[in-house]
Amino acid sequence: MAIKQKKRNAFYAQSGGVTAVINASACGVIETARKYRHKIGTVYAGKDGILGALHENLIDTSKESVTAIKALRHTPAGAFGSCRYKLKSLEKNRAEYERLIDVFQAHDIGYFFYNGGGDSQDTANKVAQLSEELGYPLTCIGIPKTVDNDLMITDNCPGFGSVAKYVAVSIREAGLDVASMAATSTKVFILEVMGRHTGWIAAAGGLAAEKAGESPHIILFPEIAFEPELFLARVKKCVKKYGFCAIVASEGIRDKEGKFLSETGLRDAFGHAQLGGVAPQLAQLIQQELNYKYHWAVADYLQRAARHIAAKVDVEQAYALGKAAVEFAMKGKNAVMSTIVRKSNNPYRWTIGETPLAAVANKEKMLPRNFITKDGFHITQAARNYLLPLIKGEDYPPYKNGLPQYVTLKNTLAKKKLKKKFTVNK
Amino acid sequence: MAIKQKKRNAFYAQSGGVTAVINASACGVIETARKYRHKIGTVYAGKDGILGALHENLIDTSKESVTAIKALRHTPAGAFGSCRYKLKSLEKNRAEYERLIDVFQAHDIGYFFYNGGGDSQDTANKVAQLSEELGYPLTCIGIPKTVDNDLMITDNCPGFGSVAKYVAVSIREAGLDVASMAATSTKVFILEVMGRHTGWIAAAGGLAAEKAGESPHIILFPEIAFEPELFLARVKKCVKKYGFCAIVASEGIRDKEGKFLSETGLRDAFGHAQLGGVAPQLAQLIQQELNYKYHWAVADYLQRAARHIAAKVDVEQAYALGKAAVEFAMKGKNAVMSTIVRKSNNPYRWTIGETPLAAVANKEKMLPRNFITKDGFHITQAARNYLLPLIKGEDYPPYKNGLPQYVTLKNTLAKKKLKKKFTVNK
Repeated sequence: MAIKQKKRNAFYAQSGGVTAVINASACGVIETARKYRHKIGTVYAGKDGILGALHENLIDTSKESVTAIKALRHTPAGAFGSCRYKLKSLEKNRAEYERLIDVFQAHDIGYFFYNGGGDSQDTANKVAQLSEELGYPLTCIGIPKTVDNDLMITDNCPGFGSVAKYVAVSIREAGLDVASMAATSTKVFILEVMGRHTGWIAAAGGLAAEKAGESPHIILFPEIAFEPELFLARVKKCVKKYGFCAIVASEGIRDKEGKFLSETGLRDAFGHAQLGGVAPQLAQLIQQELNYKYHWAVADYLQRAARHIAAKVDVEQAYALGKAAVEFAMKGKNAVMSTIVRKSNNPYRWTIGETPLAAVANKEKMLPRNFITKDGFHITQAARNYLLPLIKGEDYPPYKNGLPQYVTLKNTLAKKKLKKKFTVNK
Repeated sequence: MAIKQKKRNAFYAQSGGVTAVINASACGVIETARKYRHKIGTVYAGKDGILGALHENLIDTSKESVTAIKALRHTPAGAFGSCRYKLKSLEKNRAEYERLIDVFQAHDIGYFFYNGGGDSQDTANKVAQLSEELGYPLTCIGIPKTVDNDLMITDNCPGFGSVAKYVAVSIREAGLDVASMAATSTKVFILEVMGRHTGWIAAAGGLAAEKAGESPHIILFPEIAFEPELFLARVKKCVKKYGFCAIVASEGIRDKEGKFLSETGLRDAFGHAQLGGVAPQLAQLIQQELNYKYHWAVADYLQRAARHIAAKVDVEQAYALGKAAVEFAMKGKNAVMSTIVRKSNNPYRWTIGETPLAAVANKEKMLPRNFITKDGFHITQAARNYLLPLIKGEDYPPYKNGLPQYVTLKNTLAKKKLKKKFTVNK
């Protein structure tokens, strides 16, 4: 006779910068949890991520309709709020971890699903350790997320494929625009994209250039030291050869001394350093040295929020990773993260795998050098083989009156049970 | 017995900044002309716009397949090249106009279709006058185009609806992103959009805010003098009320003295004025005065090239205006431009009309004051009634391997017939 397992509640939180598909993971978690009603009671979501747990601001997702939860799949950004808040080490701030356990205990939370990057997987891992140490039964499962695609073990990170698609589509379109105008007007166009430490997103822009001469002509990676002379020579060569030059530049490019380009040079009238903007810096350099007419764009949040042009495979993987996290918990696994395992490139086949949280915590996966051409200005066939499957397919949100219909949840807070308040130093 | 009309060739040119749907107009012209083979011989297109005529660089569109021409409908930017080149007045540079007529005569061009804004309609009108004066039979028809939506008479301009949709979708998506992050990170987001003289594009961003508190919270129009104190007070109020503030700012905003904000302030390390970028200026102001964490985006060419998110109605109208231009010519009309006539807002109904070129030449339609709220920071219901129909419907391009498949034409040049070369001063 099977022993009846006690039904316990779950806690789900989003962490760090949001993406076009992180809510699809939330959708996967909640819809799957609802199928295990005999084992999982209420799924609570952290209001503003892990802060929601620390402040005991738990959103009761059982108050949301089936339709509303389903709509999370096509809604960008973080439906419950996210946060940039990293728990310190257990030694430095054990009180925070203990507070988490207190809140979990008060709400009979037996499952902790943490949807984030390397830092968050580290936190999930520490919570797993402490709960064991304290004898509080808690299953901790990580769900990967980061537009930067810099997590170890998992073949790719949900959120990245959609940014990659946005960047590739955008530079293809803007490249055609510049090509049209180059005879009498703009000759150089620069698109600045995200990726402070790694060039994954910038690399994805390269997919738009399928044939010689197609945009982008130049990609600037954080992995390759920026050398103005080489760059300018390449720009000049492109303009001579193709009539124009389209550039994708990572926000994180640095000079030979390792200094971010975005931190150099510009001052306002009062002498304050100007903040941000690699694209205008490059534009100014081109104008001063080559005197070409230029235009530049900074995509910023538009790129990672662009659910309207999300990659179908990205949406599917985000959902599957959330779903798998719940299934892992149901199978009694603990302190693992769901991952994407690539089976083949062409046709692209993938499956869900798992990895211990410790293996992904606090690590960064850099763009391999063999993904960048020898001259440092474009991507190789190896990069294309890896990147192309990730932008495949379209998964359009529903529209009404010309606008995408994204869901706003009720986000009803559960009644607090702890008398003690807890304040974090943001 | 009907008199057999002589078959003559046609010349089509794109002018000024390109759009996501100007090629749909080209598609309308060429496909329709191909239906009138008994009257229209070859459709030549100007390589790089009107320069193609002056330099006798005529693209022979009969060399393009039916499939390629059909694909123009979903291809952004200018497939034959455009140019920023305005013919001077007849008095100042009669030689240019005479050269046009010479080239037209050499290639037996009897129809001139000019696809552009107010300047281009002026040129088309002058060419019509001169051809009559010189006794050269030429039918001149204008086709409207401008993302700025600033042409007179026509209810709206093709190209605008798609930019409007891009801006509304983008600020809705980015607004959700900021809302997710505001608890611990970014509180203010600024999206800079096009519109140097008029606020039509910025106004379209307002459509995303359907309910109180939705993004954008603030719109900055070129029509309203920018007053830092009022602006900052509004930003502060939004952050207090909603936790964050999403802003759409026109590149053309000016201070009370009429000076462009983008021309003030920033200098590089050598004291050179920094070029462009209202969004970073506003961000810096907010950071200095309110100390909020901010992000900013500059959409630049991405917005007007964004065929992937074009408005269906915009594509249909662009095509219909090109088609109508040929039909007007077939009916013997001359020196007119095809226009959009609005029949009703809800349901939105429109039809094709016409106007003498003289009525649209060199004029600008400003955003009416009653489209802007009294406080100057948002749009009114009147604006919504006008704008909403223009972003309706989606018209996705075909995709392959995750990327939109845009056509690149062969652009075969017709053999030159004139011995005399002509050089323009760009």
